[in-house]
Amino acid sequence: MCDEVVLSLEEVIDLSMKVLTLNGLSHAQAQPLARAMALAERDDCRSHGLQRLPGCLDTISHPRFNRNADPKPEEVSAAVTRIDADFGYSLLAFERGLEVLVPKAKAMGVSILAINNCFHSTALWPEVEAITAHGLAALIMNPSHSWVAPAGGSTPVLGTNPIAFGWPRKDHPPYVFDFATSAAARAEIARHRKENQPIPMGWGVDSEGRPTTDPAAVLSGAMLTFGGHKGSALATMVELLAGPLIGGLTSMQSMAFDADAKAAPCHAELVIAFDPALLGGGNIESNHEAAEALFAAIAGQGARLPSERRFLARQRSESEGIKVSRELYDRIVLLANA
Amino acid sequence: MCDEVVLSLEEVIDLSMKVLTLNGLSHAQAQPLARAMALAERDDCRSHGLQRLPGCLDTISHPRFNRNADPKPEEVSAAVTRIDADFGYSLLAFERGLEVLVPKAKAMGVSILAINNCFHSTALWPEVEAITAHGLAALIMNPSHSWVAPAGGSTPVLGTNPIAFGWPRKDHPPYVFDFATSAAARAEIARHRKENQPIPMGWGVDSEGRPTTDPAAVLSGAMLTFGGHKGSALATMVELLAGPLIGGLTSMQSMAFDADAKAAPCHAELVIAFDPALLGGGNIESNHEAAEALFAAIAGQGARLPSERRFLARQRSESEGIKVSRELYDRIVLLANA
Repeated sequence: MCDEVVLSLEEVIDLSMKVLTLNGLSHAQAQPLARAMALAERDDCRSHGLQRLPGCLDTISHPRFNRNADPKPEEVSAAVTRIDADFGYSLLAFERGLEVLVPKAKAMGVSILAINNCFHSTALWPEVEAITAHGLAALIMNPSHSWVAPAGGSTPVLGTNPIAFGWPRKDHPPYVFDFATSAAARAEIARHRKENQPIPMGWGVDSEGRPTTDPAAVLSGAMLTFGGHKGSALATMVELLAGPLIGGLTSMQSMAFDADAKAAPCHAELVIAFDPALLGGGNIESNHEAAEALFAAIAGQGARLPSERRFLARQRSESEGIKVSRELYDRIVLLANA
Repeated sequence: MCDEVVLSLEEVIDLSMKVLTLNGLSHAQAQPLARAMALAERDDCRSHGLQRLPGCLDTISHPRFNRNADPKPEEVSAAVTRIDADFGYSLLAFERGLEVLVPKAKAMGVSILAINNCFHSTALWPEVEAITAHGLAALIMNPSHSWVAPAGGSTPVLGTNPIAFGWPRKDHPPYVFDFATSAAARAEIARHRKENQPIPMGWGVDSEGRPTTDPAAVLSGAMLTFGGHKGSALATMVELLAGPLIGGLTSMQSMAFDADAKAAPCHAELVIAFDPALLGGGNIESNHEAAEALFAAIAGQGARLPSERRFLARQRSESEGIKVSRELYDRIVLLANA
């Protein structure tokens, strides 16, 4: 009896598609979401993979969620595009906005895609990679729910507020990072609670503001940011740039909007693309070499480039197939045939 | 005998102007630099104030420094402006570029000013504040010299790479942060060495890569970033966005360019301005209120907003004058009459 199932990327996508469409999500919306979860599964980034599907069903059930949202890009300026996700998932809006973002970035050097009223889909790196595939650098961020206290405080007002960045490389996967500005992901703290494991000090405080290693106490208290007052300042910047700047909710507002439905956060997303060809001042080749020399100096001393493990897992999955635990697979198949 | 001298802002500016122009810096270049140092002195941000003047003279003496640089903005696109500082200080280039950056940001929603070939002037917050004064949000960053090791390594390849951000507020000073992505400022480590004080663990490693509290060992070894692998990733992003993206040097290249002259880093600077009025989707007032509610929730729980101490010092200086230690004042007066 094998405890793993080996699947192709298409099989993983099909499995998610069945579950999502069975629950009423339009084919157009389900497609990019199923694909992003399959890419996460392929890259061994499991917390954003198939195990996310049950949570997606909670989100789809949110009274404000729009299963048939059909977002269309609107021109704000020659450099800026807005797309109202109309209370569907962010990914379809991203995919449609990308078709405008890329040519604008190449024409202007910089371009913004402001996604409004979207429910959070999954990790941001699939979006970052989709932009770097066009030879552009990318910076993406969004608020979430107010689970995180600012440095020097203990009341949660900030979100876990991810920042993701990508830089295109020629003969390598792009340089990509994607991290929460909280000290740890909320899912990671929940996993510790489920497994009855203490969390490291510094991840959060209890409801009285006392530092604790008890995951349950942090989940009902407040998470903390990474990097002390600097991380807290960055998390605040994400609130502002991907919130009020583009007409989106702050994490406090998004939490109120959720009204305890436990759906994914409904927020805006700020996507910025930069064109090294236009911005590089005619030195494309030497600029490229300078970036590569930096990567070589980092990797050459044994320090890992971010996403390196993910790219190795991708290679492995591409040659050996995507391995999914039998237990998770069976659970998802049940959902697909419910 | 009083150990402090009380000066007006203009007197502090005049004092620096004398020193800088006496050493051959053009009036046009000296003006914004003297003003930025005086603003730092006013805001009790002493490490960027008058005590920086002797170091400026080292920079002005760098064989590649151009005392008469006369930068002019060049149009890259309707959203992007490049200005070649021509190996003078960054600030004159910033001031001249600002006149183009602001209207472009208001027309496009986002605008980039790429400053090339500039010697680092001082803190970035005076530039951030100059942009927020126009009702725009600002994000500024630059590489420096390769003093900082990446997470997981011990060879310095990254700069101290500051990130500065500002958000305009109506009846308050702007929300502003400006921090190095290194765990501490290099000047702070040098101060500890001078005063024979140990530094906290985590600021750096010795030349063998061992964690140490010895400031001298870190200065000849490697500094570390704040926030572990996340801070290290951000520092790398600054290298790329304010380096190769816009045709600028990485911190490794800037260190080589310096050729041990101990001048300020020569680098590029990336300035991004965002217009909340154009990007906000017609919800200017409610967007503004959402940002203010966030600030109130942070400050209301006793957590400090970044720059708060600086703004309090500013108020104090504005009513009582700028207090400069007699020892520093006498040293600067000597330089002004050398």
